[in-house]
Amino acid sequence: MSTTRSEALPSEPRRIRDIAHFDLEAEVVVVGLGMAGACAAIEAQEAGANVLAIERFGAGGGTSANSGGVIYMGGGTAVQKAAGFEDSPEEMYKFLVAVSQPGANEEKVRAFCEASVEHFDWFEAHGMPFKRSFHHEPSLESITDDCLVYTSGEDCHPWCEIAKPAPRGHKPQVVNKGGPFMMQCMMGAVERMPFPVEVDTRVDTLIVDDDGVVVGAVAKTAGDERCIRATKGVVLTAGGFILNDAMRDLHAPLLSKVQVHTATEGDDGRGIRMGQGVGAATLYMDLGEVALPYTIPNRLSRGIYVNQHGLRFINEDTYYGHIGIAGLYSQGGQVYLLLDDSCYERGRVGLEPSWVGETIEEVEREAGLPEGSLVSTVELYNRHAGEGRDPLFHKRSEMITPLVTPPYALIDCRVENAIWSAFTTGGLHTSVDSEVLNGDGAAIPGLYAAGRTAAMFSGQGYPGSGTSLGDASFFGRVAGRSAARRRG
Amino acid sequence: MSTTRSEALPSEPRRIRDIAHFDLEAEVVVVGLGMAGACAAIEAQEAGANVLAIERFGAGGGTSANSGGVIYMGGGTAVQKAAGFEDSPEEMYKFLVAVSQPGANEEKVRAFCEASVEHFDWFEAHGMPFKRSFHHEPSLESITDDCLVYTSGEDCHPWCEIAKPAPRGHKPQVVNKGGPFMMQCMMGAVERMPFPVEVDTRVDTLIVDDDGVVVGAVAKTAGDERCIRATKGVVLTAGGFILNDAMRDLHAPLLSKVQVHTATEGDDGRGIRMGQGVGAATLYMDLGEVALPYTIPNRLSRGIYVNQHGLRFINEDTYYGHIGIAGLYSQGGQVYLLLDDSCYERGRVGLEPSWVGETIEEVEREAGLPEGSLVSTVELYNRHAGEGRDPLFHKRSEMITPLVTPPYALIDCRVENAIWSAFTTGGLHTSVDSEVLNGDGAAIPGLYAAGRTAAMFSGQGYPGSGTSLGDASFFGRVAGRSAARRRG
Repeated sequence: MSTTRSEALPSEPRRIRDIAHFDLEAEVVVVGLGMAGACAAIEAQEAGANVLAIERFGAGGGTSANSGGVIYMGGGTAVQKAAGFEDSPEEMYKFLVAVSQPGANEEKVRAFCEASVEHFDWFEAHGMPFKRSFHHEPSLESITDDCLVYTSGEDCHPWCEIAKPAPRGHKPQVVNKGGPFMMQCMMGAVERMPFPVEVDTRVDTLIVDDDGVVVGAVAKTAGDERCIRATKGVVLTAGGFILNDAMRDLHAPLLSKVQVHTATEGDDGRGIRMGQGVGAATLYMDLGEVALPYTIPNRLSRGIYVNQHGLRFINEDTYYGHIGIAGLYSQGGQVYLLLDDSCYERGRVGLEPSWVGETIEEVEREAGLPEGSLVSTVELYNRHAGEGRDPLFHKRSEMITPLVTPPYALIDCRVENAIWSAFTTGGLHTSVDSEVLNGDGAAIPGLYAAGRTAAMFSGQGYPGSGTSLGDASFFGRVAGRSAARRRG
Repeated sequence: MSTTRSEALPSEPRRIRDIAHFDLEAEVVVVGLGMAGACAAIEAQEAGANVLAIERFGAGGGTSANSGGVIYMGGGTAVQKAAGFEDSPEEMYKFLVAVSQPGANEEKVRAFCEASVEHFDWFEAHGMPFKRSFHHEPSLESITDDCLVYTSGEDCHPWCEIAKPAPRGHKPQVVNKGGPFMMQCMMGAVERMPFPVEVDTRVDTLIVDDDGVVVGAVAKTAGDERCIRATKGVVLTAGGFILNDAMRDLHAPLLSKVQVHTATEGDDGRGIRMGQGVGAATLYMDLGEVALPYTIPNRLSRGIYVNQHGLRFINEDTYYGHIGIAGLYSQGGQVYLLLDDSCYERGRVGLEPSWVGETIEEVEREAGLPEGSLVSTVELYNRHAGEGRDPLFHKRSEMITPLVTPPYALIDCRVENAIWSAFTTGGLHTSVDSEVLNGDGAAIPGLYAAGRTAAMFSGQGYPGSGTSLGDASFFGRVAGRSAARRRG
């Protein structure tokens, strides 16, 4: 009888009775030192626990160090106030729950929003500087050292009608991409802590007792195996699974079509597998963050996206991640961006048009779109665009101009041909206290998870840039605190 | 510290060392006697095993008895041949893999197609009669006692270009709905077998040994608990989870919007929970069969479906389940069906129009669709419809007539207001041998699953009417055979 072994990753736990002796002991053992792990370790330490942090590579940082460095925080942070934006936990909650539907974890979103100002202050207290300033170009982190950005379409339809918009993407004070500096700050905070960090050490296996309680982990350093006792708990913060081809193809086949992965080698699913091996349930394993970043700079949002039927499907001024999610999950990744010469010139950023024509008919025909479809779509769009309106998708009027200036350019954004990027947002099912849950929704004693090893608070859909780091850092801290408080 | 206990269903297995004595013993224990369970039990018996079947309710049948009774089979069955349709395992495979993407389990689809003629013969040999006839009305089971139906849009775009179309929905020979008669036949076959069936008996708990091997189950009859030893294996065929509100809201929030569930009380997720409790991985828990049956009879396919933006999204002549999947997963359940008076008269089946108008403008305005959207959609549709063409979605020309005869009727098919139906198709991850797999893709010794307790062979999307019964019956037999052959 054959078995389908998708990848030779061990996840079966070892039984305590098979452990000859423990080489190390700590109250809280944190596996993986990206954003979630750093936050968990620091918080556990500050809650009075004896901590051991384990990092697979030579230094911490993880995929967080590879990111834009935007952290989603709000409700009235010091930066929001200084930059003149009103916000409240309630408006932040209304936005995040709506944008994370269906399937938003309302209990987690509530906790995340209510503590968000405190969370911002915690980062500053641990050495991460944020300039009191706003950057006007939405969606992407600032290229200056400015802080606040609209990262999630908060000021776009339909969200602007659901909650009072406020920018909530906070980038630490550094020029350009914020991820490396952000994690440098976090690693500085870790270094100031008394707990040891074991680097170049990989954890593949949990240790359980006869009642299924997680009581430790097996770590390997250059082939040497050490058994580590965790008297209060193990926190899995070992990344997602976008780089595990077998897991991704099995659970998230649409994400396998995306060419660029926001990842480090650590995102091989090991953390999730270890959780599954002790009975953890998983959630939303098919979902991910998906970015279709062709409307950066936002000036290009004056163009229109169409699907393979030549029909529009979204307001082009919204967050490019929402465009990516809709483009992949609802349109199968078969999308195109149409620009006229005036949009093209305004937004010129080296985008090569795939098809160019003096008329819309010509572009439609060249691209092989259905006869009459693009022409009809543009006719309807232009009819209202002349009045600065978009009754179908409610693009903001400042982003609307009729597409009437030839030549017309169509950019092939189909997922096979274009640069999309993705990471996984599904993972271990965790409680609002970051406990790992089994299929009954009951906590597995001694096991915690955060970051992309855990399922995000959002259900279908990725809320916006910075929400993964927001979720990872906040529920990482929660995990560290929960583990530290557990009576082992 | 709080835990999120979504529902008080126990799934934790019992350890063999905690079992005082076993009350019953069999080689293969089958839990649940719907289509999958009946097939598993019969096949295990015929493979020489000593079998015990356990049914929660007073008699077998399950949700299968509640269905239309169409079983998806092909590759050249006796009925297909007699009715003059050519088919082959290869064409069946090409269709099923394409329609089940992304994420189709190609290995399972291959096995399913290659053995499909044998599977049909097996049903007949076990007393299920099929008339050698074809029923012309696609998608739904015949209202006569005729057998074959196009149930899955095989003859519609794009599938008709991918594989040679053949009808593969086989309904047993009975007038009207086939489910009750179909399961009557299966229960007849079960009765002719020597194995005992314990009815009114519920299994909540598996029994495992110290190596994690499944060695039995705990059964309850009117409060009395009996421990049952399974020396070769336990087969979980206990239905899906559409009636478990907590599981459905957590894993498949979109399905929670659907008002009608194809289910019996047994579809409470118990089988999946028991599997999870012994380390099984789950797959595609967010997915389901979703039917939007407004184009039954197919004559109504001459109308057009539009989304909340007043734009078309599918060829209306395809299987109403494909319309349901696209309508729910891609359009958020916000869809409408537009008919003109001539379509409405042709298809009249008591459908109450939600809005009626003498012009498209009037209907558009009354229904609150975006200004100009429906008008533009109909203009483009009519332009080609006059020539019997549909370049955008490729509806078959016999289903195309221009929508030009007032009054116009718009049917509100939004998921909040209309009759959609659904059941879950995600569940335990199983191998092509119906072994239940853990997160590593390794088989959990002694545990098998089929029917809606297991994830279907399809990934995103439900292939078509009859494929759930096809999958359940075929992989149910495989489960019975695999368990019978296991060296316990």
